[in-house]
Amino acid sequence: MIVLMQNEFVERDQCLIDIEDRANQFGDGVYEVIRIYDGECFLLDDHMKRLEYSLREAQIDYNLDQHHLKDLLLELAKKNGVHDGGIYLQISRGSATRSHPFPKEATPTVIAYPLNISRPLEAQKNGVKATLYQDIRWLRCDIKSLNLLGNIMAKQHALDVGAFEAIFYRDYNHVTEGSSTNVFIVKDGVIKTHPANNYILNGITRLYIQYLAEQLNIPFEETVLTVEEVKHADEVFISSTTSEVISVVEVDEQPIGNGQPGPIVTQLLDEFFNYHRITSLT
Amino acid sequence: MIVLMQNEFVERDQCLIDIEDRANQFGDGVYEVIRIYDGECFLLDDHMKRLEYSLREAQIDYNLDQHHLKDLLLELAKKNGVHDGGIYLQISRGSATRSHPFPKEATPTVIAYPLNISRPLEAQKNGVKATLYQDIRWLRCDIKSLNLLGNIMAKQHALDVGAFEAIFYRDYNHVTEGSSTNVFIVKDGVIKTHPANNYILNGITRLYIQYLAEQLNIPFEETVLTVEEVKHADEVFISSTTSEVISVVEVDEQPIGNGQPGPIVTQLLDEFFNYHRITSLT
Repeated sequence: MIVLMQNEFVERDQCLIDIEDRANQFGDGVYEVIRIYDGECFLLDDHMKRLEYSLREAQIDYNLDQHHLKDLLLELAKKNGVHDGGIYLQISRGSATRSHPFPKEATPTVIAYPLNISRPLEAQKNGVKATLYQDIRWLRCDIKSLNLLGNIMAKQHALDVGAFEAIFYRDYNHVTEGSSTNVFIVKDGVIKTHPANNYILNGITRLYIQYLAEQLNIPFEETVLTVEEVKHADEVFISSTTSEVISVVEVDEQPIGNGQPGPIVTQLLDEFFNYHRITSLT
Repeated sequence: MIVLMQNEFVERDQCLIDIEDRANQFGDGVYEVIRIYDGECFLLDDHMKRLEYSLREAQIDYNLDQHHLKDLLLELAKKNGVHDGGIYLQISRGSATRSHPFPKEATPTVIAYPLNISRPLEAQKNGVKATLYQDIRWLRCDIKSLNLLGNIMAKQHALDVGAFEAIFYRDYNHVTEGSSTNVFIVKDGVIKTHPANNYILNGITRLYIQYLAEQLNIPFEETVLTVEEVKHADEVFISSTTSEVISVVEVDEQPIGNGQPGPIVTQLLDEFFNYHRITSLT
Protein backbone atom coordinates (compact mmCIF):
# COMPACT_ATOMS: atom_id res chain seq x y z
CA MET A 1 0.00 0.00 0.00
CA ILE A 2 1.18 3.51 -0.87
CA VAL A 3 0.50 6.29 1.62
CA LEU A 4 0.60 10.03 1.15
CA MET A 5 2.67 11.73 3.84
CA GLN A 6 2.94 15.49 3.44
CA ASN A 7 3.60 15.72 -0.32
CA GLU A 8 5.36 12.38 -0.68
CA PHE A 9 4.14 8.94 -1.62
CA VAL A 10 5.72 6.32 0.63
CA GLU A 11 5.33 2.62 1.38
CA ARG A 12 2.93 1.75 4.18
CA ASP A 13 5.62 0.24 6.42
CA GLN A 14 7.56 3.50 6.34
CA CYS A 15 4.57 5.48 7.55
CA LEU A 16 5.30 6.40 11.09
CA ILE A 17 4.61 9.56 12.98
CA ASP A 18 6.47 11.25 15.77
CA ILE A 19 5.38 10.45 19.34
CA GLU A 20 4.94 14.19 19.93
CA ASP A 21 2.67 14.66 16.96
CA ARG A 22 -0.29 16.48 18.46
CA ALA A 23 -2.68 13.95 16.91
CA ASN A 24 -1.03 11.29 19.08
CA GLN A 25 -1.02 13.32 22.31
CA PHE A 26 -4.09 15.57 22.10
CA GLY A 27 -6.27 14.18 19.30
CA ASP A 28 -5.35 17.55 17.82
CA GLY A 29 -6.31 17.10 14.19
CA VAL A 30 -9.15 16.72 11.72
CA TYR A 31 -9.99 14.15 9.08
CA GLU A 32 -12.16 13.09 6.18
CA VAL A 33 -13.26 9.73 4.79
CA ILE A 34 -13.88 9.98 1.05
CA ARG A 35 -15.71 7.34 -0.99
CA ILE A 36 -14.34 6.17 -4.31
CA TYR A 37 -16.81 4.76 -6.82
CA ASP A 38 -15.72 3.60 -10.21
CA GLY A 39 -12.26 5.13 -9.78
CA GLU A 40 -13.64 8.57 -8.88
CA CYS A 41 -13.73 10.44 -5.59
CA PHE A 42 -17.42 10.99 -4.80
CA LEU A 43 -18.35 14.52 -3.71
CA LEU A 44 -14.69 15.40 -3.36
CA ASP A 45 -15.32 19.15 -3.46
CA ASP A 46 -17.75 18.89 -0.57
CA HIS A 47 -15.21 16.93 1.49
CA MET A 48 -12.61 19.63 0.76
CA LYS A 49 -15.03 22.33 1.84
CA ARG A 50 -15.78 20.55 5.10
CA LEU A 51 -12.07 19.90 5.70
CA GLU A 52 -11.44 23.61 5.33
CA TYR A 53 -14.23 24.30 7.84
CA SER A 54 -12.81 21.82 10.37
CA LEU A 55 -9.31 23.24 10.03
CA ARG A 56 -10.59 26.78 10.52
CA GLU A 57 -12.78 25.95 13.51
CA ALA A 58 -9.99 23.94 15.18
CA GLN A 59 -7.68 26.88 14.39
CA ILE A 60 -5.17 24.65 12.63
CA ASP A 61 -2.98 26.94 10.60
CA TYR A 62 -2.75 24.90 7.40
CA ASN A 63 -2.70 26.58 4.05
CA LEU A 64 -5.12 24.23 2.31
CA ASP A 65 -4.61 24.26 -1.44
CA GLN A 66 -7.73 22.30 -2.37
CA HIS A 67 -6.71 21.94 -5.98
CA HIS A 68 -3.28 20.55 -5.12
CA LEU A 69 -4.61 18.24 -2.39
CA LYS A 70 -7.32 16.89 -4.69
CA ASP A 71 -4.68 16.08 -7.30
CA LEU A 72 -2.61 14.26 -4.68
CA LEU A 73 -5.62 12.24 -3.49
CA LEU A 74 -6.53 11.24 -7.03
CA GLU A 75 -2.93 10.21 -7.64
CA LEU A 76 -2.99 8.24 -4.38
CA ALA A 77 -6.10 6.36 -5.50
CA LYS A 78 -4.50 5.66 -8.86
CA LYS A 79 -1.18 4.48 -7.39
CA ASN A 80 -3.10 2.05 -5.18
CA GLY A 81 -5.39 0.92 -7.98
CA VAL A 82 -8.50 1.80 -6.00
CA HIS A 83 -11.58 1.35 -8.15
CA ASP A 84 -14.15 1.02 -5.38
CA GLY A 85 -13.18 1.89 -1.86
CA GLY A 86 -12.18 5.02 -0.06
CA ILE A 87 -9.49 7.36 1.19
CA TYR A 88 -8.73 8.33 4.77
CA LEU A 89 -7.22 11.80 5.07
CA GLN A 90 -5.95 13.31 8.31
CA ILE A 91 -4.32 16.65 9.09
CA SER A 92 -2.93 17.27 12.56
CA ARG A 93 -1.51 20.46 14.02
CA GLY A 94 1.95 18.88 13.71
CA SER A 95 4.70 17.76 16.03
CA ALA A 96 6.07 19.92 18.85
CA THR A 97 7.35 19.62 22.41
CA ARG A 98 4.29 18.64 24.43
CA SER A 99 2.44 21.68 25.77
CA HIS A 100 -1.26 22.56 25.68
CA PRO A 101 -1.11 25.86 23.75
CA PHE A 102 -0.88 25.78 19.97
CA PRO A 103 2.81 25.46 19.04
CA LYS A 104 4.24 28.52 17.32
CA GLU A 105 6.36 26.56 14.89
CA ALA A 106 4.81 23.30 13.85
CA THR A 107 4.14 21.99 10.38
CA PRO A 108 0.76 20.25 10.11
CA THR A 109 1.08 16.52 9.47
CA VAL A 110 -0.83 15.30 6.41
CA ILE A 111 -1.54 11.59 6.01
CA ALA A 112 -3.79 9.90 3.46
CA TYR A 113 -4.17 6.28 2.52
CA PRO A 114 -6.68 4.00 0.79
CA LEU A 115 -9.44 2.26 2.75
CA ASN A 116 -11.10 -1.01 1.93
CA ILE A 117 -14.76 -0.10 1.80
CA SER A 118 -17.44 -2.28 0.31
CA ARG A 119 -21.15 -1.65 0.17
CA PRO A 120 -22.85 -3.18 3.27
CA LEU A 121 -25.36 -5.03 1.08
CA GLU A 122 -26.90 -7.27 3.70
CA ALA A 123 -27.46 -4.42 6.17
CA GLN A 124 -28.90 -2.31 3.36
CA LYS A 125 -31.27 -5.12 2.25
CA ASN A 126 -32.55 -6.20 5.67
CA GLY A 127 -32.06 -3.12 7.80
CA VAL A 128 -30.29 -3.06 11.16
CA LYS A 129 -30.97 -2.65 14.86
CA ALA A 130 -29.93 0.46 16.75
CA THR A 131 -29.68 1.24 20.43
CA LEU A 132 -30.18 4.57 22.17
CA TYR A 133 -27.15 5.95 23.99
CA GLN A 134 -26.63 9.14 25.95
CA ASP A 135 -24.70 11.75 23.99
CA ILE A 136 -21.95 12.87 26.37
CA ARG A 137 -19.65 14.22 23.68
CA TRP A 138 -18.33 17.75 23.56
CA LEU A 139 -20.37 20.56 22.03
CA ARG A 140 -18.33 21.02 18.86
CA CYS A 141 -19.36 17.85 17.02
CA ASP A 142 -19.50 19.99 13.87
CA ILE A 143 -15.69 19.80 13.76
CA LYS A 144 -14.61 16.47 12.24
CA SER A 145 -11.86 16.07 14.81
CA LEU A 146 -9.78 13.16 16.07
CA ASN A 147 -11.36 13.44 19.55
CA LEU A 148 -13.48 10.34 19.01
CA LEU A 149 -13.41 8.50 22.32
CA GLY A 150 -17.09 9.23 22.97
CA ASN A 151 -17.95 7.92 19.53
CA ILE A 152 -15.96 4.69 19.71
CA MET A 153 -17.22 3.87 23.20
CA ALA A 154 -20.80 4.29 21.95
CA LYS A 155 -20.14 2.16 18.86
CA GLN A 156 -18.60 -0.58 20.99
CA HIS A 157 -21.62 -0.45 23.32
CA ALA A 158 -23.92 -0.90 20.31
CA LEU A 159 -22.04 -4.01 19.19
CA ASP A 160 -22.02 -5.33 22.77
CA VAL A 161 -25.83 -5.25 22.88
CA GLY A 162 -26.23 -6.75 19.41
CA ALA A 163 -26.97 -3.50 17.56
CA PHE A 164 -25.33 -2.03 14.47
CA GLU A 165 -25.31 1.57 15.62
CA ALA A 166 -25.79 3.72 18.72
CA ILE A 167 -28.21 6.60 18.27
CA PHE A 168 -27.25 9.48 20.53
CA TYR A 169 -29.72 11.52 22.58
CA ARG A 170 -29.01 14.55 24.78
CA ASP A 171 -30.98 16.10 27.63
CA TYR A 172 -33.18 13.02 28.10
CA ASN A 173 -34.78 12.94 24.67
CA HIS A 174 -33.15 15.18 22.08
CA VAL A 175 -31.83 12.87 19.33
CA THR A 176 -28.66 14.15 17.65
CA GLU A 177 -26.94 11.58 15.42
CA GLY A 178 -25.33 8.13 15.42
CA SER A 179 -21.86 7.25 16.69
CA SER A 180 -20.52 7.35 13.11
CA THR A 181 -23.65 8.23 11.12
CA ASN A 182 -26.39 10.83 10.77
CA VAL A 183 -29.90 9.81 11.78
CA PHE A 184 -33.13 10.48 9.85
CA ILE A 185 -36.75 9.61 10.27
CA VAL A 186 -39.62 9.59 7.82
CA LYS A 187 -43.02 10.67 9.13
CA ASP A 188 -46.04 11.15 6.87
CA GLY A 189 -43.80 11.28 3.81
CA VAL A 190 -41.40 13.91 5.24
CA ILE A 191 -37.70 13.18 5.86
CA LYS A 192 -36.62 14.77 9.14
CA THR A 193 -33.15 15.11 10.62
CA HIS A 194 -31.23 17.20 13.16
CA PRO A 195 -30.22 20.70 12.02
CA ALA A 196 -26.56 21.05 11.00
CA ASN A 197 -25.28 22.84 14.10
CA ASN A 198 -22.65 22.20 16.79
CA TYR A 199 -24.41 19.05 18.06
CA ILE A 200 -23.77 16.99 14.92
CA LEU A 201 -21.26 16.38 12.18
CA ASN A 202 -22.79 17.59 8.95
CA GLY A 203 -22.23 14.42 6.94
CA ILE A 204 -21.46 14.71 3.26
CA THR A 205 -23.90 11.82 2.73
CA ARG A 206 -26.42 13.79 4.81
CA LEU A 207 -25.99 16.67 2.36
CA TYR A 208 -26.33 14.26 -0.53
CA ILE A 209 -29.58 12.89 0.91
CA GLN A 210 -30.86 16.45 1.18
CA TYR A 211 -29.93 16.90 -2.48
CA LEU A 212 -31.58 13.62 -3.50
CA ALA A 213 -34.74 14.52 -1.57
CA GLU A 214 -35.00 17.72 -3.61
CA GLN A 215 -34.46 15.80 -6.85
CA LEU A 216 -37.08 13.22 -5.87
CA ASN A 217 -39.56 15.79 -4.54
CA ILE A 218 -39.51 14.33 -1.05
CA PRO A 219 -40.05 17.01 1.64
CA PHE A 220 -36.92 17.40 3.82
CA GLU A 221 -37.04 19.08 7.20
CA GLU A 222 -34.26 19.97 9.66
CA THR A 223 -35.72 19.76 13.13
CA VAL A 224 -34.88 18.50 16.61
CA LEU A 225 -36.30 14.99 17.01
CA THR A 226 -37.29 13.35 20.27
CA VAL A 227 -36.69 9.73 21.21
CA GLU A 228 -40.45 9.16 20.99
CA GLU A 229 -40.61 10.55 17.46
CA VAL A 230 -37.81 8.21 16.41
CA LYS A 231 -39.47 5.19 17.99
CA HIS A 232 -42.81 5.97 16.37
CA ALA A 233 -41.53 7.05 12.96
CA ASP A 234 -42.72 5.41 9.75
CA GLU A 235 -39.07 4.86 8.81
CA VAL A 236 -35.72 5.44 10.50
CA PHE A 237 -32.43 5.38 8.64
CA ILE A 238 -28.79 6.25 9.09
CA SER A 239 -26.23 7.55 6.61
CA SER A 240 -22.48 7.83 6.27
CA THR A 241 -19.82 7.84 3.60
CA THR A 242 -19.08 4.16 4.16
CA SER A 243 -22.66 2.98 4.88
CA GLU A 244 -24.46 5.15 2.31
CA VAL A 245 -28.01 4.70 3.70
CA ILE A 246 -29.15 1.85 5.93
CA SER A 247 -32.64 1.33 7.25
CA VAL A 248 -33.01 1.02 11.03
CA VAL A 249 -35.81 -1.48 11.57
CA GLU A 250 -35.59 -1.74 15.34
CA VAL A 251 -34.60 0.72 18.09
CA ASP A 252 -34.11 -0.82 21.53
CA GLU A 253 -36.49 -3.74 20.85
CA GLN A 254 -39.09 -1.39 19.33
CA PRO A 255 -39.81 -2.32 15.70
CA ILE A 256 -39.94 0.70 13.39
CA GLY A 257 -42.95 0.74 11.06
CA ASN A 258 -43.57 -2.85 9.97
CA GLY A 259 -40.01 -3.88 10.89
CA GLN A 260 -38.83 -3.84 7.27
CA PRO A 261 -36.94 -1.19 5.24
CA GLY A 262 -39.54 1.36 4.13
CA PRO A 263 -40.23 2.88 0.72
CA ILE A 264 -38.31 6.13 1.12
CA VAL A 265 -35.05 4.63 2.33
CA THR A 266 -35.37 2.08 -0.47
CA GLN A 267 -35.84 4.89 -2.97
CA LEU A 268 -32.75 6.69 -1.63
CA LEU A 269 -30.71 3.51 -1.70
CA ASP A 270 -31.60 3.03 -5.37
CA GLU A 271 -29.96 6.38 -6.05
CA PHE A 272 -26.72 5.12 -4.48
CA PHE A 273 -26.89 1.93 -6.53
CA ASN A 274 -27.49 4.02 -9.62
CA TYR A 275 -24.28 6.02 -9.15
CA HIS A 276 -24.31 9.68 -10.11
CA ARG A 277 -20.94 11.11 -11.08
CA ILE A 278 -21.02 14.18 -8.87
CA THR A 279 -18.03 15.88 -7.32
CA SER A 280 -19.85 18.89 -5.85
CA LEU A 281 -23.36 19.50 -4.56
CA THR A 282 -23.16 23.26 -4.89
CA MET B 1 16.96 11.42 25.22
CA ILE B 2 15.98 7.83 25.99
CA VAL B 3 12.33 6.86 25.58
CA LEU B 4 10.47 3.85 26.91
CA MET B 5 8.47 2.13 24.18
CA GLN B 6 6.63 -0.97 25.32
CA ASN B 7 9.35 -2.62 27.46
CA GLU B 8 12.32 -1.26 25.53
CA PHE B 9 14.49 1.78 26.00
CA VAL B 10 15.16 3.46 22.67
CA GLU B 11 16.69 6.66 21.37
CA ARG B 12 14.27 9.57 20.90
CA ASP B 13 14.76 9.75 17.14
CA GLN B 14 13.70 6.12 16.78
CA CYS B 15 10.43 6.75 18.59
CA LEU B 16 7.77 6.65 15.99
CA ILE B 17 4.30 5.22 16.10
CA ASP B 18 2.16 3.65 13.45
CA ILE B 19 -0.27 5.92 11.59
CA GLU B 20 -3.09 3.53 12.56
CA ASP B 21 -2.27 3.69 16.24
CA ARG B 22 -5.62 4.51 17.79
CA ALA B 23 -4.05 7.38 19.73
CA ASN B 24 -3.28 9.02 16.39
CA GLN B 25 -6.70 8.43 14.79
CA PHE B 26 -9.18 8.50 17.70
CA GLY B 27 -7.34 10.01 20.68
CA ASP B 28 -7.95 6.52 22.00
CA GLY B 29 -5.59 6.38 24.94
CA VAL B 30 -4.87 7.64 28.44
CA TYR B 31 -1.87 9.33 30.03
CA GLU B 32 -0.17 10.58 33.17
CA VAL B 33 2.33 13.36 33.88
CA ILE B 34 4.49 12.47 36.87
CA ARG B 35 6.68 14.95 38.73
CA ILE B 36 10.22 14.06 39.68
CA TYR B 37 11.76 15.88 42.64
CA ASP B 38 15.22 15.11 43.84
CA GLY B 39 15.46 12.02 41.63
CA GLU B 40 12.24 10.53 42.96
CA CYS B 41 8.82 10.12 41.33
CA PHE B 42 6.42 12.13 43.50
CA LEU B 43 3.18 10.34 44.42
CA LEU B 44 3.94 7.61 41.92
CA ASP B 45 1.53 5.13 43.50
CA ASP B 46 -1.32 7.60 43.16
CA HIS B 47 -0.51 8.15 39.50
CA MET B 48 -0.51 4.38 38.96
CA LYS B 49 -3.88 4.07 40.67
CA ARG B 50 -5.37 6.80 38.50
CA LEU B 51 -3.85 5.26 35.37
CA GLU B 52 -5.52 1.98 36.25
CA TYR B 53 -8.82 3.86 36.69
CA SER B 54 -8.50 5.61 33.32
CA LEU B 55 -7.64 2.36 31.54
CA ARG B 56 -10.61 0.59 33.10
CA GLU B 57 -13.08 3.38 32.38
CA ALA B 58 -11.88 3.70 28.77
CA GLN B 59 -12.11 -0.10 28.54
CA ILE B 60 -8.52 -0.42 27.36
CA ASP B 61 -7.57 -4.02 27.88
CA TYR B 62 -4.07 -3.55 29.28
CA ASN B 63 -2.75 -5.80 31.95
CA LEU B 64 -1.17 -3.10 34.12
CA ASP B 65 1.60 -4.50 36.28
CA GLN B 66 2.09 -1.43 38.47
CA HIS B 67 5.21 -2.79 40.09
CA HIS B 68 6.89 -3.54 36.75
CA LEU B 69 5.84 -0.23 35.20
CA LYS B 70 7.07 1.74 38.20
CA ASP B 71 10.45 0.02 37.89
CA LEU B 72 10.60 0.93 34.20
CA LEU B 73 9.72 4.58 34.90
CA LEU B 74 12.37 4.83 37.61
CA GLU B 75 14.91 3.30 35.24
CA LEU B 76 13.81 5.76 32.54
CA ALA B 77 14.38 8.70 34.88
CA LYS B 78 17.79 7.31 35.84
CA LYS B 79 18.86 6.64 32.25
CA ASN B 80 17.98 10.24 31.39
CA GLY B 81 19.61 11.64 34.49
CA VAL B 82 16.44 13.42 35.56
CA HIS B 83 16.90 14.94 38.98
CA ASP B 84 14.10 17.52 38.80
CA GLY B 85 11.57 17.28 36.04
CA GLY B 86 8.90 14.86 35.04
CA ILE B 87 7.78 11.88 33.02
CA TYR B 88 5.06 11.72 30.39
CA LEU B 89 3.43 8.29 30.16
CA GLN B 90 0.85 7.33 27.54
CA ILE B 91 -0.98 4.09 26.86
CA SER B 92 -3.15 3.79 23.76
CA ARG B 93 -5.46 0.95 22.74
CA GLY B 94 -2.84 0.00 20.12
CA SER B 95 -2.63 -0.13 16.36
CA ALA B 96 -5.27 -1.76 14.16
CA THR B 97 -6.98 -1.26 10.81
CA ARG B 98 -9.08 1.87 11.27
CA SER B 99 -12.58 1.07 12.51
CA HIS B 100 -14.59 2.59 15.36
CA PRO B 101 -15.17 -0.54 17.50
CA PHE B 102 -12.43 -1.70 19.84
CA PRO B 103 -10.06 -3.92 17.84
CA LYS B 104 -10.10 -7.56 18.87
CA GLU B 105 -6.38 -8.05 18.49
CA ALA B 106 -4.37 -4.98 19.32
CA THR B 107 -1.49 -4.60 21.73
CA PRO B 108 -1.69 -1.36 23.73
CA THR B 109 1.10 1.07 22.87
CA VAL B 110 3.12 2.25 25.87
CA ILE B 111 5.30 5.34 25.56
CA ALA B 112 7.11 7.22 28.32
CA TYR B 113 9.75 9.91 28.18
CA PRO B 114 11.23 12.60 30.40
CA LEU B 115 9.76 16.11 30.48
CA ASN B 116 11.56 19.33 31.24
CA ILE B 117 9.58 20.78 34.10
CA SER B 118 10.75 23.58 36.28
CA ARG B 119 8.91 25.28 39.11
CA PRO B 120 6.99 28.32 37.75
CA LEU B 121 8.52 30.58 40.39
CA GLU B 122 7.42 33.91 39.05
CA ALA B 123 3.79 32.82 38.62
CA GLN B 124 3.87 31.30 42.09
CA LYS B 125 5.29 34.48 43.60
CA ASN B 126 3.06 37.05 41.91
CA GLY B 127 -0.01 35.05 41.05
CA VAL B 128 -1.62 34.92 37.61
CA LYS B 129 -4.69 36.08 35.71
CA ALA B 130 -7.40 33.65 34.65
CA THR B 131 -10.28 33.98 32.24
CA LEU B 132 -13.66 32.27 32.38
CA TYR B 133 -14.45 29.94 29.49
CA GLN B 134 -17.46 27.81 28.73
CA ASP B 135 -16.86 24.13 29.48
CA ILE B 136 -18.01 22.35 26.32
CA ARG B 137 -15.99 19.18 26.93
CA TRP B 138 -17.47 15.72 27.12
CA LEU B 139 -18.94 14.39 30.36
CA ARG B 140 -16.17 11.91 31.21
CA CYS B 141 -13.46 14.38 32.22
CA ASP B 142 -12.63 11.95 35.04
CA ILE B 143 -10.83 9.81 32.43
CA LYS B 144 -7.36 11.23 31.77
CA SER B 145 -7.74 10.64 28.05
CA LEU B 146 -6.01 11.95 24.94
CA ASN B 147 -9.22 13.68 23.79
CA LEU B 148 -7.91 17.10 24.71
CA LEU B 149 -9.04 19.40 21.91
CA GLY B 150 -11.48 21.21 24.22
CA ASN B 151 -8.69 21.73 26.73
CA ILE B 152 -6.08 23.01 24.32
CA MET B 153 -8.51 25.40 22.60
CA ALA B 154 -9.41 26.83 26.01
CA LYS B 155 -5.74 27.16 27.01
CA GLN B 156 -4.93 28.93 23.76
CA HIS B 157 -7.87 31.29 24.29
CA ALA B 158 -6.52 32.13 27.76
CA LEU B 159 -3.11 33.02 26.32
CA ASP B 160 -4.76 35.03 23.54
CA VAL B 161 -6.51 37.26 26.09
CA GLY B 162 -3.39 37.64 28.25
CA ALA B 163 -4.37 35.10 30.93
CA PHE B 164 -2.42 32.16 32.30
CA GLU B 165 -5.33 29.76 32.55
CA ALA B 166 -8.94 29.31 31.43
CA ILE B 167 -11.36 28.45 34.22
CA PHE B 168 -14.22 26.37 32.87
CA TYR B 169 -17.87 26.89 33.79
CA ARG B 170 -20.88 24.82 32.71
CA ASP B 171 -24.58 25.64 32.61
CA TYR B 172 -24.00 29.40 32.89
CA ASN B 173 -22.26 29.44 36.28
CA HIS B 174 -21.13 26.03 37.53
CA VAL B 175 -17.33 26.19 37.79
CA THR B 176 -15.60 22.86 37.11
CA GLU B 177 -11.81 23.14 36.69
CA GLY B 178 -9.10 24.77 34.59
CA SER B 179 -7.99 23.74 31.11
CA SER B 180 -5.04 21.85 32.61
CA THR B 181 -5.49 22.48 36.33
CA ASN B 182 -7.94 22.04 39.20
CA VAL B 183 -9.52 25.19 40.64
CA PHE B 184 -9.94 26.06 44.33
CA ILE B 185 -11.24 28.99 46.29
CA VAL B 186 -10.75 30.00 49.89
CA LYS B 187 -13.70 31.59 51.66
CA ASP B 188 -13.71 32.36 55.38
CA GLY B 189 -10.79 30.05 55.91
CA VAL B 190 -12.29 27.06 54.06
CA ILE B 191 -10.72 25.60 50.90
CA LYS B 192 -13.47 24.70 48.43
CA THR B 193 -13.23 22.80 45.15
CA HIS B 194 -15.40 20.82 42.75
CA PRO B 195 -16.27 17.27 43.82
CA ALA B 196 -14.24 14.53 42.11
CA ASN B 197 -16.90 13.33 39.66
CA ASN B 198 -17.26 13.00 35.89
CA TYR B 199 -16.99 16.78 35.33
CA ILE B 200 -13.36 17.05 36.39
CA LEU B 201 -10.06 15.23 36.34
CA ASN B 202 -9.21 14.31 39.89
CA GLY B 203 -5.71 15.78 39.93
CA ILE B 204 -3.02 14.05 41.96
CA THR B 205 -1.97 17.51 43.14
CA ARG B 206 -5.63 18.14 44.05
CA LEU B 207 -5.48 15.01 46.22
CA TYR B 208 -2.21 16.21 47.69
CA ILE B 209 -3.75 19.57 48.56
CA GLN B 210 -6.58 17.75 50.27
CA TYR B 211 -3.95 15.78 52.21
CA LEU B 212 -2.00 18.95 53.09
CA ALA B 213 -5.19 20.69 54.23
CA GLU B 214 -5.79 17.86 56.69
CA GLN B 215 -2.20 18.04 57.91
CA LEU B 216 -2.44 21.81 58.33
CA ASN B 217 -5.92 21.75 59.87
CA ILE B 218 -7.44 23.81 57.09
CA PRO B 219 -11.09 22.90 56.45
CA PHE B 220 -11.50 21.38 52.96
CA GLU B 221 -14.88 21.16 51.25
CA GLU B 222 -15.90 19.53 47.96
CA THR B 223 -18.79 21.56 46.58
CA VAL B 224 -20.07 23.00 43.33
CA LEU B 225 -18.87 26.58 43.01
CA THR B 226 -20.54 29.34 41.05
CA VAL B 227 -18.79 31.98 38.97
CA GLU B 228 -19.88 34.60 41.52
CA GLU B 229 -18.35 32.62 44.40
CA VAL B 230 -15.08 32.42 42.50
CA LYS B 231 -15.07 36.12 41.71
CA HIS B 232 -15.81 37.05 45.31
CA ALA B 233 -13.57 34.51 47.01
CA ASP B 234 -10.90 35.53 49.51
CA GLU B 235 -8.40 33.51 47.48
CA VAL B 236 -8.50 31.56 44.22
CA PHE B 237 -5.79 29.12 43.20
CA ILE B 238 -5.09 26.42 40.64
CA SER B 239 -3.09 23.23 40.93
CA SER B 240 -1.45 20.69 38.66
CA THR B 241 1.50 18.34 38.63
CA THR B 242 3.60 20.83 36.68
CA SER B 243 2.31 24.03 38.32
CA GLU B 244 2.02 22.75 41.90
CA VAL B 245 -0.14 25.60 43.26
CA ILE B 246 -0.46 29.04 41.74
CA SER B 247 -2.53 31.90 43.10
CA VAL B 248 -5.09 33.44 40.74
CA VAL B 249 -5.15 37.12 41.56
CA GLU B 250 -7.50 38.27 38.82
CA VAL B 251 -10.44 36.62 37.03
CA ASP B 252 -11.67 38.47 33.94
CA GLU B 253 -10.51 41.89 35.19
CA GLN B 254 -11.94 41.24 38.66
CA PRO B 255 -9.18 41.32 41.32
CA ILE B 256 -9.44 38.48 43.82
CA GLY B 257 -9.11 39.57 47.45
CA ASN B 258 -6.49 42.32 47.57
CA GLY B 259 -5.04 41.23 44.21
CA GLN B 260 -2.07 39.45 45.84
CA PRO B 261 -1.46 35.76 46.66
CA GLY B 262 -3.30 35.08 49.93
CA PRO B 263 -2.15 33.37 53.12
CA ILE B 264 -3.54 29.89 52.47
CA VAL B 265 -2.13 29.43 48.98
CA THR B 266 1.19 30.73 50.35
CA GLN B 267 1.04 28.19 53.16
CA LEU B 268 0.35 25.38 50.65
CA LEU B 269 3.13 26.54 48.38
CA ASP B 270 5.55 26.37 51.31
CA GLU B 271 4.73 22.69 51.60
CA PHE B 272 5.76 22.17 47.97
CA PHE B 273 8.99 24.08 48.55
CA ASN B 274 9.62 21.97 51.62
CA TYR B 275 9.44 18.70 49.69
CA HIS B 276 7.92 15.68 51.40
CA ARG B 277 9.16 12.33 50.14
CA ILE B 278 5.78 10.71 49.62
CA THR B 279 4.97 8.10 47.00
CA SER B 280 1.43 7.34 48.13
CA LEU B 281 -1.31 9.35 49.84
CA THR B 282 -3.22 6.31 51.00
